[in-house]
Amino acid sequence: MSNSNDTSFEQNFMPGLAVDTVIFGFHEHSLRVLVLRYKRTDIYALPGGFIQKKESLDDAAKRVLKERTGLKNIYLQQFYAFGDLARFDNAPMKKILQGNALKVSEAQWLLQRFISVSYYALIDYTKAVPIPDTLSESCEWYDLKKMPKMMMDHNLIVTKALATLRENLDRKLIAFKLLPQTFTMNELQVLYETILGEKLLRTSFHRKMQNLGILEHVDRKVTGGAHKAPYLYRFVAGRKQGRK
Amino acid sequence: MSNSNDTSFEQNFMPGLAVDTVIFGFHEHSLRVLVLRYKRTDIYALPGGFIQKKESLDDAAKRVLKERTGLKNIYLQQFYAFGDLARFDNAPMKKILQGNALKVSEAQWLLQRFISVSYYALIDYTKAVPIPDTLSESCEWYDLKKMPKMMMDHNLIVTKALATLRENLDRKLIAFKLLPQTFTMNELQVLYETILGEKLLRTSFHRKMQNLGILEHVDRKVTGGAHKAPYLYRFVAGRKQGRK
Repeated sequence: MSNSNDTSFEQNFMPGLAVDTVIFGFHEHSLRVLVLRYKRTDIYALPGGFIQKKESLDDAAKRVLKERTGLKNIYLQQFYAFGDLARFDNAPMKKILQGNALKVSEAQWLLQRFISVSYYALIDYTKAVPIPDTLSESCEWYDLKKMPKMMMDHNLIVTKALATLRENLDRKLIAFKLLPQTFTMNELQVLYETILGEKLLRTSFHRKMQNLGILEHVDRKVTGGAHKAPYLYRFVAGRKQGRK
Repeated sequence: MSNSNDTSFEQNFMPGLAVDTVIFGFHEHSLRVLVLRYKRTDIYALPGGFIQKKESLDDAAKRVLKERTGLKNIYLQQFYAFGDLARFDNAPMKKILQGNALKVSEAQWLLQRFISVSYYALIDYTKAVPIPDTLSESCEWYDLKKMPKMMMDHNLIVTKALATLRENLDRKLIAFKLLPQTFTMNELQVLYETILGEKLLRTSFHRKMQNLGILEHVDRKVTGGAHKAPYLYRFVAGRKQGRK
């Protein structure tokens, strides 16, 4: 969006199609989402952008995330294409153009109806430093319980992404690389509880995890204390997570 | 596609975007997919089409399925947007146009790069009578093990749809309405085995189904035989299937 010229958009990008990304940030007991605020507006939005004509959808999602937030090398999972008529509202885009001193008349391309193919990711937010792009005033983590009202259907996109993340956590655990090389069952349980937003029973959680068949013992943690040290686990080497 | 005029396409449809549908047909121990063959060509394809400018993505999928196969009132589940560059191959479209005596020069719109948002469904194929549209020679069920080579990435779309169907069967059981009002555990097991393509152990299957919390006993089947009649089950009334 650095060049607002209609011809340039039309030459370089697929029309009517956008990508949006929901980046969940996890640490200890807190779950957050990365949100941009556009310069000189009160418009909040997910990091999103357009697909180049000679670029795959997946590559577009990675590029857009990097351009808009500085984040790279993140496992992005496509989860849904949002295509309701109700999402077609170009009033926010007009405000964004004005906030960046761009002429609406020269950017008709941006005012068309877009369908958004959306991706989500889950990372440890203490290990990522997002940087706002030139269009944005800020690029910050918001607690899921205190999300700002975002443009168009972006809040709905987050809701759907969260439901998908929760449904698929078991089979995406390895792909997301959320845990250190070795970890305790307790660390794994905190991760689950944070993402599911609820307390879990220790014994049934342990049983469920054992049944997934993706964990193996490493060694007992060495401590100086009198209590038994907890087992350490790692993901089974080379195990690909497929069907439950 | 009944009007091949470029202007008409451009006025009425979202550019660069298609919907494709994977209709799985299930009966007893067999699993099939609905495939079209274009007239006067050897081109096989999934039922697909374009999205009207004033139509939601979901409505487009329903309309396209109805127009191309005659099937309606089917629960369609969106599952993936296919957007690799490798899928951009307009050679089959040129053949289809020629097979229908249409001029390629007047249908440039159809030769652009398309991203396909794909939907799948699962129905009892003995209860559906597909009818080919005017572009198609045939619209028939193919056993999953004997699929024809289809145009573009359509075989890949089926593979991905099948993986998604298998992964989500537990939480889509009610939505698909595949079973009669009441059914035996054995009937349910045959359904699972057919879709998963493997035999399941009776006892662990029963336990898993009980644990899903979506089934309830109805009554014992009355038979004249000496053996105990099997239990009948139904889905718990008003139960919405959400998270596992």
